[in-house]
Amino acid sequence: MSLVIVGSVALDTIETPQGRVDEALGGSAVYGALAASYFAPTHIVGVVGADYPARGLELLKARQINLDGLETKPGKTFRWSGTYRQWNQADTLSTDLNVFAEFSPALPPSCKCCRSLLLANIHPQLQLQVLAQIESYQWVACDTMNYWISLCPELLSEVFRKVDIVFINEDEIRQYTGLENIFAAARQLLGMGVKAVVIKRGEYGSVTVLPGDLFFAPAYPVEQVMDPTGAGDSFAGGFMGYLATQEGLTKNVIRNAVRFGTVLAAENVSAFSVEGLVDLEFSALQKRVHQLRNWA
Amino acid sequence: MSLVIVGSVALDTIETPQGRVDEALGGSAVYGALAASYFAPTHIVGVVGADYPARGLELLKARQINLDGLETKPGKTFRWSGTYRQWNQADTLSTDLNVFAEFSPALPPSCKCCRSLLLANIHPQLQLQVLAQIESYQWVACDTMNYWISLCPELLSEVFRKVDIVFINEDEIRQYTGLENIFAAARQLLGMGVKAVVIKRGEYGSVTVLPGDLFFAPAYPVEQVMDPTGAGDSFAGGFMGYLATQEGLTKNVIRNAVRFGTVLAAENVSAFSVEGLVDLEFSALQKRVHQLRNWA
Repeated sequence: MSLVIVGSVALDTIETPQGRVDEALGGSAVYGALAASYFAPTHIVGVVGADYPARGLELLKARQINLDGLETKPGKTFRWSGTYRQWNQADTLSTDLNVFAEFSPALPPSCKCCRSLLLANIHPQLQLQVLAQIESYQWVACDTMNYWISLCPELLSEVFRKVDIVFINEDEIRQYTGLENIFAAARQLLGMGVKAVVIKRGEYGSVTVLPGDLFFAPAYPVEQVMDPTGAGDSFAGGFMGYLATQEGLTKNVIRNAVRFGTVLAAENVSAFSVEGLVDLEFSALQKRVHQLRNWA
Repeated sequence: MSLVIVGSVALDTIETPQGRVDEALGGSAVYGALAASYFAPTHIVGVVGADYPARGLELLKARQINLDGLETKPGKTFRWSGTYRQWNQADTLSTDLNVFAEFSPALPPSCKCCRSLLLANIHPQLQLQVLAQIESYQWVACDTMNYWISLCPELLSEVFRKVDIVFINEDEIRQYTGLENIFAAARQLLGMGVKAVVIKRGEYGSVTVLPGDLFFAPAYPVEQVMDPTGAGDSFAGGFMGYLATQEGLTKNVIRNAVRFGTVLAAENVSAFSVEGLVDLEFSALQKRVHQLRNWA
């Protein structure tokens, strides 16, 4: 069953202690879709400018990602520039929204047959706009960021009340709930109807909070982190891609979804931009998931 | 089989966001021994001044801890005072070594029949002095701290070359090895003959690195941390206490030792000073270990 990912498509200029890339492929929908493409047919809904490089489109097509929902508008593609002094926190140097400023997501007809939806990190108003367009989706998940929590917490609450799965990092869930204890914070989201709260903890992995259950997963050990950009997006993409192939939101399905997300995030941070996600062997991903299971 | 713990016995004045205690029972040997006492006969080797409160001795005796190796010297007991602005890092306000300045650990005859030894956080020279006194111990473990890594790394290396298990936190192992990657850092210690490197990660739990294997354990979730003092000591005490009851250093034994250490550390940080360790039900500890296993 297919997965739709709605999010940003960007050109990123990134500097890390390991090097630098200029106007490299990025954006939450691109990271997410590349990760998800190893599991399920994946559709991107987003917008690019006329300057979006052909290589970006080729790379998505090579992974069989459906681009019916990817609009091309006159003007320039969204650009982001950031630097990492610490691995777990980007310092934004510049954000040029360009065509993304007017993004108004519309699901094309080919998305109607999809059963899973990942609302990657975009304005909660746009996430709600997408939610208003769907009918019979089985699993709907959202990601978010500190910026939206500060700017429009009520809109975000509306999103949370409409989704099954929330991906959020530990600082963000503390900020949103005002609670220091992340388990208490997650219970607040469960109380809003969320079925699974996946709290991301960077190099320490994640903890997934479910009604009456917890699941701690370590990060997959990486010899050398090159570029952490997109780690959360590839985690969510891998998770939702795996989930799209499963029938029920059972304990074991969620645990394997977390493990696959974890492994995809590790592949992603091992190279700059999206390079770590373009040429993976499924059997190697399975092997790493097996290792993760054995190490806990 | 019995366990010997050599370390500090202190009176701590501690301030945390949750409150304050003055001259409360503390010290690495006390935290470790109380935690270990739920598993195996435990002996303390340490020193106190004439002012050490009767309640301290009574509390240790109530847990059946053997005090043959606890010397009482004229003068005052070691005092430490610290405050926590962040949960994972104490700011030391004062350290009055008092009788601990002249501590010269000597294993009494009753320790000769012991099979396990935990060298808690003391000067590596003293750890070596204890190691020179033992003969047929099965498992020997050490803890340490950043202070000794800076002051006398060569002495610490001598200790590492003589022990089976090292407890160390992630900042410390990076500092000791000069390596950013904790797995590479742990492999360096394994290369020195250590059989298991237990890297403590505070609220994120621990990762144990063995030749050809890893074991990630989350921290046991605590509703409200009251006082993190002694978390590492009670972890090591619980780990070594459990290990003292087992025959081999097998994969499952190490994993259960980590889980019991984790649970004891959680009990400890849930109350000020050593109060969280004095009155536990073994069946409750087992239940929490079972939960930890199910959550990973």
